[in-house]
Amino acid sequence: MADHIEGKRPVLEALRSGMPIEEVCLLDNLEHDTLVKDILRKCKQKGVAVAHVPRKRMDELIRKAAPKAPAERQRKIAAQGVVAIASPFPYATLSDVIAVADEQAERTGRALVIVCDHLTDTGNLGAIARSAECVGAAGVVIPNKRSAHVTAATYKSSAGAIAHIKVAEVSNISQALEKLKGAGFWAVAATEHASPLLWDTNMTGRIALVLGNEQSGVSALVRKTCDLECKLPMFGDISSLNVAQASTAFMFEWLRQNGASC
Amino acid sequence: MADHIEGKRPVLEALRSGMPIEEVCLLDNLEHDTLVKDILRKCKQKGVAVAHVPRKRMDELIRKAAPKAPAERQRKIAAQGVVAIASPFPYATLSDVIAVADEQAERTGRALVIVCDHLTDTGNLGAIARSAECVGAAGVVIPNKRSAHVTAATYKSSAGAIAHIKVAEVSNISQALEKLKGAGFWAVAATEHASPLLWDTNMTGRIALVLGNEQSGVSALVRKTCDLECKLPMFGDISSLNVAQASTAFMFEWLRQNGASC
Repeated sequence: MADHIEGKRPVLEALRSGMPIEEVCLLDNLEHDTLVKDILRKCKQKGVAVAHVPRKRMDELIRKAAPKAPAERQRKIAAQGVVAIASPFPYATLSDVIAVADEQAERTGRALVIVCDHLTDTGNLGAIARSAECVGAAGVVIPNKRSAHVTAATYKSSAGAIAHIKVAEVSNISQALEKLKGAGFWAVAATEHASPLLWDTNMTGRIALVLGNEQSGVSALVRKTCDLECKLPMFGDISSLNVAQASTAFMFEWLRQNGASC
Repeated sequence: MADHIEGKRPVLEALRSGMPIEEVCLLDNLEHDTLVKDILRKCKQKGVAVAHVPRKRMDELIRKAAPKAPAERQRKIAAQGVVAIASPFPYATLSDVIAVADEQAERTGRALVIVCDHLTDTGNLGAIARSAECVGAAGVVIPNKRSAHVTAATYKSSAGAIAHIKVAEVSNISQALEKLKGAGFWAVAATEHASPLLWDTNMTGRIALVLGNEQSGVSALVRKTCDLECKLPMFGDISSLNVAQASTAFMFEWLRQNGASC
């Protein structure tokens, strides 16, 4: 099913983010204010089709775009008269990611898969994907429920990198880790509750790096499934690192321990 | 001089970010829509004074808040009828930062100062400050002109950490680096144009880590002033890391090489 993005600003953001947009629908006789002009300019620049639709069709689109929004919110969105239809993100399977990792491990002796244990922030998912793409990770694994998925915000915060790395949806993170372990990976949980430091932990070879939810971290069950766990040392008064920032430090340490150079 | 923040959403963001706000001014008879209600709720919660002001005073405040905005934009802001007066950020001097570093080096054998060579994004400044605070850096140095300064966006992206680390404004980055070198620091430029990798570079002891502008990186003159330069290896198809993400990898490598543990 195609994804729908509703409202002037979100549609403009989506067009700017590099997210593949199939069509932008504007209400017939919509006033061309600054935002609408910007949207039309971006569509032209990117070769995105623009359709002018009657009120009835717009109302249908809004219901698809924001099916759970309260009626008042749906009316507000409809008043803006702009909906974009985005191409559905081409999620991979875990087997796809493992196939990439196998090829990489054969060639370089190392492979990295990032496993996100129920992130909630789509921007964090994008920032993590950007770092993962930079270090040459084989892919990112996310749960198919109660998790951030790929949205326009993900495209934006990944600076487009999300389109260049495999993102696999799985129904169960622990089972996915078991499968990765079966494929020769060490599952390493990044958690502040660990005793060992990142750099005292063996990160050579095939590593499945498990990142936790923004509030609660890696869940107890997932931690149990992991072979190892480690943390970054913290020396500040506040000492909370965003999960995406922390993940970058973990990923480059994986590269360092594997003697990567270019 | 106090900082002014104008418009409903920016004021609400500033209140949420943890930025110290002295007073929120609302236009007399302003309609209490959802955003205004949220602003009033936040003010109450944070003990921020609310003043109701006549149109003439509001226009004066807008001129102070957005002195360079075109007249049309100023009118739009004025129509929103909301301005916040923020406490000016207490910038430190380079000597203050060096004093903290001296104390840290004495105690731990290591000290880190982050030198930002004309960043433009206030959010990046905040994310860098957050990582710097986490690794226990002595401070962040920024130029007083043509550079991102501390704004509500900085508070937000730093998750409040900006209030817990010294930020020094200097008039010239190269001169600041010379002063840091005189105080026993090695100046290390983080630049993709370097040959040595981060982990092949000696980052022990007192390090002034120089981060570059988002577009152009560390400037040629500043690079010449540095003792060393190094890069992160990149293995992706896109291979561009946000400066704040990259800085996190550099900062934790500094901790690692200094044998930090906690």
